[in-house]
Amino acid sequence: MYVPVVIVGSGPAGLLLSHLLKRRGIESIILERKSREHVEGRIRAGVLEMGTVGLMRKIGVDQRMNAEGILHDGIYISVDGERHHINMKELTGGQTVMIYGQTELTKDLIAVRLEQGGEIVFEAEDVSLHDIESDRATVRYVKDGAEHSLTCDYIAACDGYHGVGRRTMPENRLKTFERVYPFGWLGILAKAKPVADELIYACHQRGFALCSMRSETVVRHYVQVPSDARIEDWSDDRFWNELRRRLGPRDAELVNEGEVFEKSIAPLRSFVAEPMSHGRLFLAGDAAHIVPPTGAKGLNLAASDVHYLSQALIARFCYNDERPLAHYSQQATARVWKSERFSWWMTSMLHRFGDEGTFDGRMRRAELDYMLSSKAGKTVLAENYVGLPF
Amino acid sequence: MYVPVVIVGSGPAGLLLSHLLKRRGIESIILERKSREHVEGRIRAGVLEMGTVGLMRKIGVDQRMNAEGILHDGIYISVDGERHHINMKELTGGQTVMIYGQTELTKDLIAVRLEQGGEIVFEAEDVSLHDIESDRATVRYVKDGAEHSLTCDYIAACDGYHGVGRRTMPENRLKTFERVYPFGWLGILAKAKPVADELIYACHQRGFALCSMRSETVVRHYVQVPSDARIEDWSDDRFWNELRRRLGPRDAELVNEGEVFEKSIAPLRSFVAEPMSHGRLFLAGDAAHIVPPTGAKGLNLAASDVHYLSQALIARFCYNDERPLAHYSQQATARVWKSERFSWWMTSMLHRFGDEGTFDGRMRRAELDYMLSSKAGKTVLAENYVGLPF
Repeated sequence: MYVPVVIVGSGPAGLLLSHLLKRRGIESIILERKSREHVEGRIRAGVLEMGTVGLMRKIGVDQRMNAEGILHDGIYISVDGERHHINMKELTGGQTVMIYGQTELTKDLIAVRLEQGGEIVFEAEDVSLHDIESDRATVRYVKDGAEHSLTCDYIAACDGYHGVGRRTMPENRLKTFERVYPFGWLGILAKAKPVADELIYACHQRGFALCSMRSETVVRHYVQVPSDARIEDWSDDRFWNELRRRLGPRDAELVNEGEVFEKSIAPLRSFVAEPMSHGRLFLAGDAAHIVPPTGAKGLNLAASDVHYLSQALIARFCYNDERPLAHYSQQATARVWKSERFSWWMTSMLHRFGDEGTFDGRMRRAELDYMLSSKAGKTVLAENYVGLPF
Repeated sequence: MYVPVVIVGSGPAGLLLSHLLKRRGIESIILERKSREHVEGRIRAGVLEMGTVGLMRKIGVDQRMNAEGILHDGIYISVDGERHHINMKELTGGQTVMIYGQTELTKDLIAVRLEQGGEIVFEAEDVSLHDIESDRATVRYVKDGAEHSLTCDYIAACDGYHGVGRRTMPENRLKTFERVYPFGWLGILAKAKPVADELIYACHQRGFALCSMRSETVVRHYVQVPSDARIEDWSDDRFWNELRRRLGPRDAELVNEGEVFEKSIAPLRSFVAEPMSHGRLFLAGDAAHIVPPTGAKGLNLAASDVHYLSQALIARFCYNDERPLAHYSQQATARVWKSERFSWWMTSMLHRFGDEGTFDGRMRRAELDYMLSSKAGKTVLAENYVGLPF
């Protein structure tokens, strides 16, 4: 069977791409290794840049987002218990972000895709990519024990860090860059009211903490933990107590406890693979790059990749212009490095690395102090947080 | 013999301090290990912040500076041969810097000090500081073979990194922070016309270069060299050729060669000692901190230290208020760390560290690319370059 584009992975990147292509009449099939239930249950980030919101609006999957999403004009940065406000809207001339969970966005994208008759093959096993340097590529997979094969013009690998997409790139073409941070984030979801009207990023002697939210009744909070921390050592009580200590006495009183219904530890890593394409294979999102979660750039970076890739595929299919596809990797990675820089910078400023008594440690603290003392410094934070232009 | 303040070191920090005190009727004696000729011959930086210019004007040692100093509204940053302009005046709402050699400024400060009957003991050997925790401190030194002793209320150690001042601080009180960069600067002074109307900071695959100037007929140029580079391996020809290559083909044509009359290699280092005072001993300038020369903060940071210290001594002697002296270290180090941050940041962005293929290397390059692409980023550079407020 032939289809113009095979998309591997039904995360936000793959789903968004399928919608952007469909809008211009370009058919695609999405292959997803996991079940629909699993995909719709994954807990991820929840801060959307306006560029990402704009893509959702463009494809018309914005009804629930518009109704339930919460606009935030700024963030708080708490330093050893003292809160500072970064008014992003003021600093950027009117830009804001939207609080709307990636999980919800994924559910919306799947529902509309299926309603419109688009195909998503869930539980597609053993996906493999072939002939990516030929006139047509082939994608093989197994579904319910039966082998299937698709021929296509292009493959979009939106299948995450562990996916088959990047592994199929010729090893001698790929350059990778990585930084593993010496800590992770312990995160909870709880039925409770948010601590404040906006997110609080807390830099404290005991470590980083983040008070985030999913809605007016569900909070998402995190505390920095050592890389070898074990979830079973973190009772709900210990979590709430640690969170309060890192917020300092004033904000600690504002913490509302509630039933914790999700708890997990995620490592922090920066990773970039270049180039993002080879022959008929194109990578987007986590398949090509990982950012640490500080600043919430992961989903938004996937969205900008997919924006560039959709425009390049539209140029190819609608106008027979192959140049944007040839240019895709360069265009996407230019923005990738800017987001990597921001995520690394914000992570560096706000976390404890255990070297606070050294010159490097003092530089990170000086960076934070300077940023908070300077309008230009705060504008650097703000314009990156709301998202650099696509 | 008693004198209210003994100043160790007749560099710009010590000299400026003596003038600022004299202006309010506070007497001091400067002890200098080297000869006047030596002090007036040392080649140092040449970019003055307006705060430093303001201090020179305040003490009335500004005639030659006003006549010969050159105001610069901005700098150029050249990246692999392509020049970008940072219009500091525009970005900071009117602030500029002044090109005037530290050597010239030192000559002016010495001449006026001696004219006004102030004392500078040149070639004072074996300076030692005593009783800094007592009611009065004592300073001993040897001049022309004879031993001398001064009692004083306060000692200002403006005697540089290798001076006796920091060494006299109790070891268990002092915390030090250091970073040694894996390269140095090979600098020349030459009789030639400047390459451009403003300084060019060049980031190039072959390494950093800087085209600076002392006047319309004397240039000061630098190229980054490995830490183990030897001056005898760098003929004038080799220097000019390397400089041209790092500027790229377009700017290379603008380089005017001329007689090289000074050539030296300096290592690059960041260093901070805290606190900057103990008992009756106060450190200022290089005695307490070193910055790499990128961004020209060394002299200007010494000037802001001395501004704070002079105000604290004036409060003590004129208003019998000891609190500013007790607060001096905290006040000065807050600005020190900001200047250290800037010098480290500018050094990091513009030099080659040999790890350009790693994540860290790419972060440094992303920092440069982002800064040049963002008005807020350029403003961060500009407001630090012209000098943060005292």
